[in-house]
Amino acid sequence: MAAVIPESHRDILVGKNFAHIATLMRDGSPQVTPVWVDQEGDLVVFNTSEGRQKPRNLDRDGRVALSVLDHANPYRYIQIRGVVEEKTTQGAEEHIDRLAKKYMGVDRYPYHDPAQPRVIYRVRPLHVQTMG
Amino acid sequence: MAAVIPESHRDILVGKNFAHIATLMRDGSPQVTPVWVDQEGDLVVFNTSEGRQKPRNLDRDGRVALSVLDHANPYRYIQIRGVVEEKTTQGAEEHIDRLAKKYMGVDRYPYHDPAQPRVIYRVRPLHVQTMG
Repeated sequence: MAAVIPESHRDILVGKNFAHIATLMRDGSPQVTPVWVDQEGDLVVFNTSEGRQKPRNLDRDGRVALSVLDHANPYRYIQIRGVVEEKTTQGAEEHIDRLAKKYMGVDRYPYHDPAQPRVIYRVRPLHVQTMG
Repeated sequence: MAAVIPESHRDILVGKNFAHIATLMRDGSPQVTPVWVDQEGDLVVFNTSEGRQKPRNLDRDGRVALSVLDHANPYRYIQIRGVVEEKTTQGAEEHIDRLAKKYMGVDRYPYHDPAQPRVIYRVRPLHVQTMG
Protein backbone atom coordinates (compact mmCIF):
# COMPACT_ATOMS: atom_id res chain seq x y z
CA MET A 1 0.00 0.00 0.00
CA ALA A 2 3.06 2.25 0.15
CA ALA A 3 3.36 5.12 -2.31
CA VAL A 4 6.48 6.46 -3.93
CA ILE A 5 7.80 9.99 -3.95
CA PRO A 6 7.61 10.89 -7.65
CA GLU A 7 10.95 11.92 -9.13
CA SER A 8 9.15 14.89 -10.75
CA HIS A 9 8.57 16.44 -7.32
CA ARG A 10 11.37 15.01 -5.20
CA ASP A 11 13.29 18.28 -5.59
CA ILE A 12 10.66 19.99 -3.43
CA LEU A 13 11.70 17.77 -0.50
CA VAL A 14 15.38 18.03 -1.35
CA GLY A 15 15.24 21.83 -1.58
CA LYS A 16 15.05 24.47 1.09
CA ASN A 17 11.27 24.23 1.52
CA PHE A 18 9.32 23.96 4.75
CA ALA A 19 6.99 21.04 5.33
CA HIS A 20 3.77 21.55 7.26
CA ILE A 21 3.21 18.38 9.22
CA ALA A 22 -0.15 17.35 10.61
CA THR A 23 -0.46 15.00 13.55
CA LEU A 24 -3.39 14.02 15.77
CA MET A 25 -4.03 15.40 19.23
CA ARG A 26 -5.27 13.05 21.97
CA ASP A 27 -8.89 13.92 21.14
CA GLY A 28 -8.32 13.10 17.46
CA SER A 29 -8.29 16.70 16.28
CA PRO A 30 -5.55 17.76 13.87
CA GLN A 31 -2.50 19.89 14.60
CA VAL A 32 -0.17 21.36 11.96
CA THR A 33 3.28 22.77 12.42
CA PRO A 34 6.08 23.86 10.06
CA VAL A 35 9.25 21.75 10.08
CA TRP A 36 12.47 21.24 8.19
CA VAL A 37 12.17 18.19 6.01
CA ASP A 38 14.36 15.67 4.26
CA GLN A 39 13.91 12.50 2.18
CA GLU A 40 15.66 9.14 2.00
CA GLY A 41 14.50 7.01 -0.92
CA ASP A 42 10.78 6.58 -0.44
CA LEU A 43 10.73 7.90 3.10
CA VAL A 44 10.09 11.43 4.29
CA VAL A 45 12.30 12.33 7.21
CA PHE A 46 12.11 15.05 9.82
CA ASN A 47 13.80 15.85 13.08
CA THR A 48 12.26 17.12 16.29
CA SER A 49 12.87 17.08 20.05
CA GLU A 50 11.30 14.90 22.69
CA GLY A 51 8.74 16.71 24.77
CA ARG A 52 7.20 18.68 21.97
CA GLN A 53 3.60 18.24 20.86
CA LYS A 54 4.49 16.53 17.58
CA PRO A 55 6.39 13.56 19.06
CA ARG A 56 3.80 13.22 21.82
CA ASN A 57 1.13 12.98 19.15
CA LEU A 58 3.09 10.65 16.88
CA ASP A 59 3.99 8.27 19.68
CA ARG A 60 0.27 7.88 20.41
CA ASP A 61 -0.88 7.70 16.76
CA GLY A 62 1.65 7.40 13.95
CA ARG A 63 -0.66 8.70 11.23
CA VAL A 64 0.77 11.83 9.73
CA ALA A 65 0.25 14.11 6.74
CA LEU A 66 2.41 16.80 5.23
CA SER A 67 2.27 19.47 2.58
CA VAL A 68 5.29 21.17 1.02
CA LEU A 69 5.30 24.04 -1.46
CA ASP A 70 8.10 24.81 -3.86
CA HIS A 71 8.99 28.29 -2.57
CA ALA A 72 10.09 29.28 -6.09
CA ASN A 73 6.62 28.40 -7.42
CA PRO A 74 3.97 27.90 -4.75
CA TYR A 75 1.55 26.40 -7.27
CA ARG A 76 3.90 23.44 -7.44
CA TYR A 77 3.62 21.24 -4.38
CA ILE A 78 3.54 17.76 -2.94
CA GLN A 79 1.22 16.49 -0.26
CA ILE A 80 1.64 13.17 1.45
CA ARG A 81 -0.32 11.02 3.87
CA GLY A 82 1.55 8.27 5.64
CA VAL A 83 2.62 6.60 8.84
CA VAL A 84 5.66 6.70 11.05
CA GLU A 85 7.89 3.80 10.10
CA GLU A 86 10.78 4.56 12.44
CA LYS A 87 11.59 6.81 15.33
CA THR A 88 15.22 6.96 16.43
CA THR A 89 17.69 9.11 18.28
CA GLN A 90 20.52 7.40 16.39
CA GLY A 91 22.29 9.95 14.22
CA ALA A 92 19.69 12.55 15.11
CA GLU A 93 22.16 15.23 16.32
CA GLU A 94 24.19 14.90 13.10
CA HIS A 95 20.98 14.91 11.10
CA ILE A 96 19.82 18.23 12.56
CA ASP A 97 23.25 19.63 11.65
CA ARG A 98 22.68 18.57 8.04
CA LEU A 99 19.24 20.18 8.08
CA ALA A 100 20.76 23.36 9.55
CA LYS A 101 23.21 23.35 6.65
CA LYS A 102 20.37 23.08 4.16
CA TYR A 103 18.04 25.62 5.77
CA MET A 104 20.39 28.02 7.53
CA GLY A 105 23.63 27.56 5.61
CA VAL A 106 25.55 26.78 8.81
CA ASP A 107 27.67 23.71 9.59
CA ARG A 108 26.22 23.16 13.01
CA TYR A 109 22.67 23.53 14.30
CA PRO A 110 22.96 26.46 16.71
CA TYR A 111 20.38 25.23 19.23
CA HIS A 112 21.74 21.86 20.33
CA ASP A 113 20.52 21.27 23.88
CA PRO A 114 21.48 18.14 25.83
CA ALA A 115 18.24 18.55 27.78
CA GLN A 116 16.29 18.23 24.54
CA PRO A 117 17.82 15.37 22.56
CA ARG A 118 16.91 15.31 18.88
CA VAL A 119 14.88 12.51 17.39
CA ILE A 120 14.41 11.47 13.78
CA TYR A 121 11.04 10.35 12.43
CA ARG A 122 10.93 8.44 9.16
CA VAL A 123 7.52 8.47 7.49
CA ARG A 124 6.31 5.91 4.96
CA PRO A 125 4.07 7.63 2.38
CA LEU A 126 0.77 5.83 1.71
CA HIS A 127 -0.86 8.46 -0.51
CA VAL A 128 0.95 11.11 -2.53
CA GLN A 129 -0.56 13.97 -4.51
CA THR A 130 1.34 16.52 -6.54
CA MET A 131 0.40 19.72 -8.29
CA GLY A 132 2.24 21.69 -10.93
CA MET B 1 -12.91 28.71 24.79
CA ALA B 2 -12.31 30.74 21.61
CA ALA B 3 -8.85 32.19 21.02
CA VAL B 4 -7.98 35.47 19.38
CA ILE B 5 -5.68 36.10 16.45
CA PRO B 6 -2.91 38.16 18.06
CA GLU B 7 -2.40 41.56 16.41
CA SER B 8 1.35 40.84 16.44
CA HIS B 9 0.87 38.08 13.87
CA ARG B 10 -2.32 39.07 12.05
CA ASP B 11 -0.20 40.43 9.17
CA ILE B 12 0.81 36.85 8.33
CA LEU B 13 -2.83 36.05 7.53
CA VAL B 14 -3.39 39.41 5.83
CA GLY B 15 -0.28 39.03 3.65
CA LYS B 16 0.35 36.90 0.62
CA ASN B 17 1.18 33.75 2.58
CA PHE B 18 -0.15 30.24 2.01
CA ALA B 19 -1.95 28.41 4.79
CA HIS B 20 -1.52 24.67 5.14
CA ILE B 21 -4.86 23.36 6.34
CA ALA B 22 -5.30 20.00 8.04
CA THR B 23 -8.61 18.18 8.05
CA LEU B 24 -9.61 14.66 9.03
CA MET B 25 -10.22 11.83 6.59
CA ARG B 26 -13.10 9.41 7.22
CA ASP B 27 -10.79 7.05 9.10
CA GLY B 28 -9.60 9.89 11.35
CA SER B 29 -6.19 10.25 9.72
CA PRO B 30 -4.98 13.77 8.92
CA GLN B 31 -4.75 15.42 5.50
CA VAL B 32 -2.94 18.70 4.79
CA THR B 33 -3.24 20.93 1.77
CA PRO B 34 -2.04 24.43 0.88
CA VAL B 35 -4.73 27.10 0.48
CA TRP B 36 -5.15 30.81 0.11
CA VAL B 37 -6.23 32.30 3.40
CA ASP B 38 -7.94 35.37 4.75
CA GLN B 39 -9.09 36.68 8.12
CA GLU B 40 -12.16 38.51 9.40
CA GLY B 41 -11.83 39.70 12.98
CA ASP B 42 -11.20 36.58 15.02
CA LEU B 43 -12.10 34.18 12.24
CA VAL B 44 -9.81 32.52 9.71
CA VAL B 45 -11.43 32.31 6.31
CA PHE B 46 -10.69 30.21 3.28
CA ASN B 47 -12.40 29.39 0.03
CA THR B 48 -12.68 26.04 -1.71
CA SER B 49 -14.94 24.16 -4.12
CA GLU B 50 -17.55 21.55 -3.39
CA GLY B 51 -16.45 18.05 -4.28
CA ARG B 52 -12.88 18.39 -3.12
CA GLN B 53 -11.44 16.38 -0.26
CA LYS B 54 -11.25 19.31 2.16
CA PRO B 55 -15.00 20.17 2.16
CA ARG B 56 -15.91 16.49 2.25
CA ASN B 57 -13.75 16.11 5.34
CA LEU B 58 -14.95 19.33 6.99
CA ASP B 59 -18.61 18.52 6.45
CA ARG B 60 -18.07 15.24 8.32
CA ASP B 61 -15.85 16.67 11.08
CA GLY B 62 -15.40 20.43 11.46
CA ARG B 63 -12.15 20.19 13.41
CA VAL B 64 -9.38 21.90 11.52
CA ALA B 65 -5.82 23.13 12.01
CA LEU B 66 -3.64 25.42 9.99
CA SER B 67 -0.11 26.68 9.89
CA VAL B 68 1.06 29.80 8.05
CA LEU B 69 4.63 31.03 7.62
CA ASP B 70 5.61 34.61 6.95
CA HIS B 71 7.31 34.11 3.57
CA ALA B 72 9.61 37.04 4.32
CA ASN B 73 10.81 35.30 7.51
CA PRO B 74 9.83 31.64 7.76
CA TYR B 75 10.86 31.52 11.42
CA ARG B 76 7.88 33.75 12.09
CA TYR B 77 4.61 31.88 11.92
CA ILE B 78 1.18 31.31 13.33
CA GLN B 79 -0.49 27.98 13.91
CA ILE B 80 -4.12 27.60 14.81
CA ARG B 81 -6.45 24.81 15.87
CA GLY B 82 -10.15 25.45 15.60
CA VAL B 83 -13.54 24.46 14.27
CA VAL B 84 -15.66 25.41 11.31
CA GLU B 85 -18.12 28.05 12.45
CA GLU B 86 -19.78 28.74 9.11
CA LYS B 87 -19.88 27.28 5.63
CA THR B 88 -21.55 29.38 2.96
CA THR B 89 -21.73 29.89 -0.78
CA GLN B 90 -22.95 33.46 -0.18
CA GLY B 91 -20.38 35.89 -1.52
CA ALA B 92 -18.01 33.04 -2.26
CA GLU B 93 -17.42 33.86 -5.95
CA GLU B 94 -16.59 37.49 -5.04
CA HIS B 95 -14.42 36.28 -2.19
CA ILE B 96 -12.27 34.09 -4.45
CA ASP B 97 -11.83 37.14 -6.69
CA ARG B 98 -10.49 39.10 -3.70
CA LEU B 99 -8.14 36.23 -2.86
CA ALA B 100 -6.99 36.12 -6.51
CA LYS B 101 -6.24 39.84 -6.21
CA LYS B 102 -4.15 39.23 -3.11
CA TYR B 103 -2.30 36.14 -4.32
CA MET B 104 -2.18 36.57 -8.10
CA GLY B 105 -2.57 40.34 -8.50
CA VAL B 106 -5.55 39.91 -10.84
CA ASP B 107 -9.04 41.40 -10.50
CA ARG B 108 -10.86 38.20 -11.26
CA TYR B 109 -10.10 34.61 -10.29
CA PRO B 110 -9.23 33.00 -13.63
CA TYR B 111 -10.69 29.55 -12.86
CA HIS B 112 -14.35 30.31 -12.11
CA ASP B 113 -16.32 27.20 -13.04
CA PRO B 114 -20.13 27.08 -12.69
CA ALA B 115 -19.81 23.31 -12.29
CA GLN B 116 -17.63 23.85 -9.20
CA PRO B 117 -19.27 26.60 -7.15
CA ARG B 118 -17.02 28.22 -4.58
CA VAL B 119 -17.68 27.90 -0.88
CA ILE B 120 -16.38 29.91 2.05
CA TYR B 121 -15.39 28.28 5.34
CA ARG B 122 -15.05 30.46 8.42
CA VAL B 123 -13.00 28.88 11.19
CA ARG B 124 -13.17 29.81 14.87
CA PRO B 125 -9.70 29.51 16.44
CA LEU B 126 -9.64 27.59 19.74
CA HIS B 127 -5.86 27.43 20.21
CA VAL B 128 -3.32 29.79 18.70
CA GLN B 129 0.45 29.54 18.83
CA THR B 130 2.90 32.00 17.33
CA MET B 131 6.63 32.03 16.82
CA GLY B 132 8.99 34.85 16.03
